[in-house]
Amino acid sequence: MNATDSTNSPSSSSSSSSPSLSLPPVTVLGLGRMGSALAATLLAAGHPTTVWNRTPGKADALAARGARAAADPGAAVAASPLVVACVLDHDALRSALAPHTAALDGVTLVNLTSGSPEQAEETAEWAAAHGARYLDGAIMTTPEGVGDAAMMFLYSGDAAAFDEHRATLAALGDPVHLGSAPGLASLYDAALLGLMWSVFAGWLHGTALVGAEKVDAAAYTPVALRWLSGAVSTFVTRYAAQVDAGAYPGDDATVDVQIATVDHLLHAAGRRGVDTALPALLKDVMVRARDAGHGDDSFASVIEVLR
Amino acid sequence: MNATDSTNSPSSSSSSSSPSLSLPPVTVLGLGRMGSALAATLLAAGHPTTVWNRTPGKADALAARGARAAADPGAAVAASPLVVACVLDHDALRSALAPHTAALDGVTLVNLTSGSPEQAEETAEWAAAHGARYLDGAIMTTPEGVGDAAMMFLYSGDAAAFDEHRATLAALGDPVHLGSAPGLASLYDAALLGLMWSVFAGWLHGTALVGAEKVDAAAYTPVALRWLSGAVSTFVTRYAAQVDAGAYPGDDATVDVQIATVDHLLHAAGRRGVDTALPALLKDVMVRARDAGHGDDSFASVIEVLR
Ligand SMILES: NC(=O)c1ccc[n+]([C@@H]2O[C@H](COP(=O)([O-])OP(=O)(O)OC[C@H]3O[C@@H](n4cnc5c(N)ncnc54)[C@H](OP(=O)(O)O)[C@@H]3O)[C@@H](O)[C@H]2O)c1
Ligand SMILES: NC(=O)c1ccc[n+]([C@@H]2O[C@H](COP(=O)([O-])OP(=O)(O)OC[C@H]3O[C@@H](n4cnc5c(N)ncnc54)[C@H](OP(=O)(O)O)[C@@H]3O)[C@@H](O)[C@H]2O)c1
Repeated sequence: MNATDSTNSPSSSSSSSSPSLSLPPVTVLGLGRMGSALAATLLAAGHPTTVWNRTPGKADALAARGARAAADPGAAVAASPLVVACVLDHDALRSALAPHTAALDGVTLVNLTSGSPEQAEETAEWAAAHGARYLDGAIMTTPEGVGDAAMMFLYSGDAAAFDEHRATLAALGDPVHLGSAPGLASLYDAALLGLMWSVFAGWLHGTALVGAEKVDAAAYTPVALRWLSGAVSTFVTRYAAQVDAGAYPGDDATVDVQIATVDHLLHAAGRRGVDTALPALLKDVMVRARDAGHGDDSFASVIEVLR
Repeated sequence: MNATDSTNSPSSSSSSSSPSLSLPPVTVLGLGRMGSALAATLLAAGHPTTVWNRTPGKADALAARGARAAADPGAAVAASPLVVACVLDHDALRSALAPHTAALDGVTLVNLTSGSPEQAEETAEWAAAHGARYLDGAIMTTPEGVGDAAMMFLYSGDAAAFDEHRATLAALGDPVHLGSAPGLASLYDAALLGLMWSVFAGWLHGTALVGAEKVDAAAYTPVALRWLSGAVSTFVTRYAAQVDAGAYPGDDATVDVQIATVDHLLHAAGRRGVDTALPALLKDVMVRARDAGHGDDSFASVIEVLR
């Protein structure tokens, strides 16, 4: 068991401007590709870092750079008031800690393991039952992106624990707290991954289409990204306000007009032997919105047929 | 018939820094919502602007601000060496000009009417047969975006005509020339609209998902847009190089790993009564890529099953 002395922890990100302060200790549980990147980044930022991994050899490289390798999860948790976990799944974390739950009393457990919102809620209850404060998290980058302040780390759960450890968590990426319900980070994670795959699929479909006329992906992609960050983002921001208002004025881009245009895309793809499943699905949601009475409304009205 | 004196036209965008030059005349055919915005913008930029519309009353507001309303399409075309057309479709343009084709000799016809790549090629041949130089175009914004240099106007066709009139076209939005094949602008248009709808659908799906837990679109959307412009755009740029190379190293984000993750999204959506057709389609393309041997490759390998 360890006593958390939160008054020794920097409580705002401004602490990083005081290089003479010694940084608070952190423990990392799990040294897979992601856990190793987390531990290496915290160590490089100057935090006394304790690590543990089920297969011990994975701690060696970090130990050579100054990390302390704990013999078991209990000793690892006892070493620091802030414990960051990143293992395969929630079950792996809870089963590894099961024989050592006494060590959890008073620590803040930040679980960056992927899982469902329901699993996050269960693990939050389990942590609370053992006296730990709990933050669930979702890492919105790959191991190479860890340490880049442009990358988002999403957190949800205990807001006071987040505020207290924000400066430490900021070493990993930009910490974004979404609310006190523990499941929010993983719900956002699912939503954002769905958006990412939608972008990948839409971009690859267009790349295949122009590729049929010998246009390189390298030529098409900068135009596509500019379109995304410009006009498309402007529409999305406008539509967000429409969704919250529950009213979708069509102005100059109605569902009816877009249904007519999507046929051009289906035709252009079909003629070039490019798959039509994606444009057909996009047309289908628009047609469902029209059939629900949204023909004169904007594309944002499609949300009415999705939920 | 009018004589084009191209040496009087500014040939580079730097001309806008010489306010004392008189700007070249332009004709706009079609004064619907988009054509009216084009004509108003050219007029406001200082170009002597001649307009024509099938239903004459739509020219009145522009005439009151200094545009010259031509009595018929022939007179309109004869008034300027640069003719910008924006009507319902290619047939409407060609049928309106059919009795007046003699006036086309020597002009540059910039057709911003939407259509298919094949229609662009046909209209380009038709224009060439009547002695006109031809640019096809696609307007990547709404009428309100016309005149904003951040918005893209895509052009394809006669490169010399584009260079000559680039400064005038820049008044409408950022002119991007894609190549000399006339169909390219409309092919890009179809590809980019498909990407836009994919983004809309993916974003609305995520908005419905987090909305089921009482998160506002206004809270979710800034996180989603930041994700798009940051990590997702970085992936897309990396994947574009993979597509052109025809090799899709999986590194840390393989198709197999993403197939496992998409099940979380399907589950999270299903439990909250949110439509699962979009994530099911995304999973399906990933499964098809895996079945084609790309399980260890990146998502970019999905292009192999789309074309
Ligand atoms: N990699 C990414 O790009 C990325 C991005 C965002 C989120 N994530 C999430 O981060 C988590 C870890 O991912 P990763 O890429 O680091 O995976 P990984 O390289 O496969 O590492 C898995 C880790 O989990 C440990 N583990 C597995 N089963 C265990 C058990 N029963 N008890 C204790 N430890 C166990 C492994 O220990 P051993 O070494 O002993 O096997 C290893 O440390 C996952 O939830 C993943 O979804 C990853
Ligand atoms: N609005 C947008 O956001 C947007 C964006 C990108 C591209 N576009 C494209 O721009 C073009 C025009 O769109 P819009 O929004 O301006 O449409 P609109 O407001 O419906 O205007 C249609 C125009 O076409 C004319 N027209 C129709 N049939 C004709 C015919 N047989 N002969 C001569 N003229 C005819 C109409 O003349 P009358 O006034 O006599 O009916 C009117 O000027 C379309 O190809 C559209 O796809 C529009």
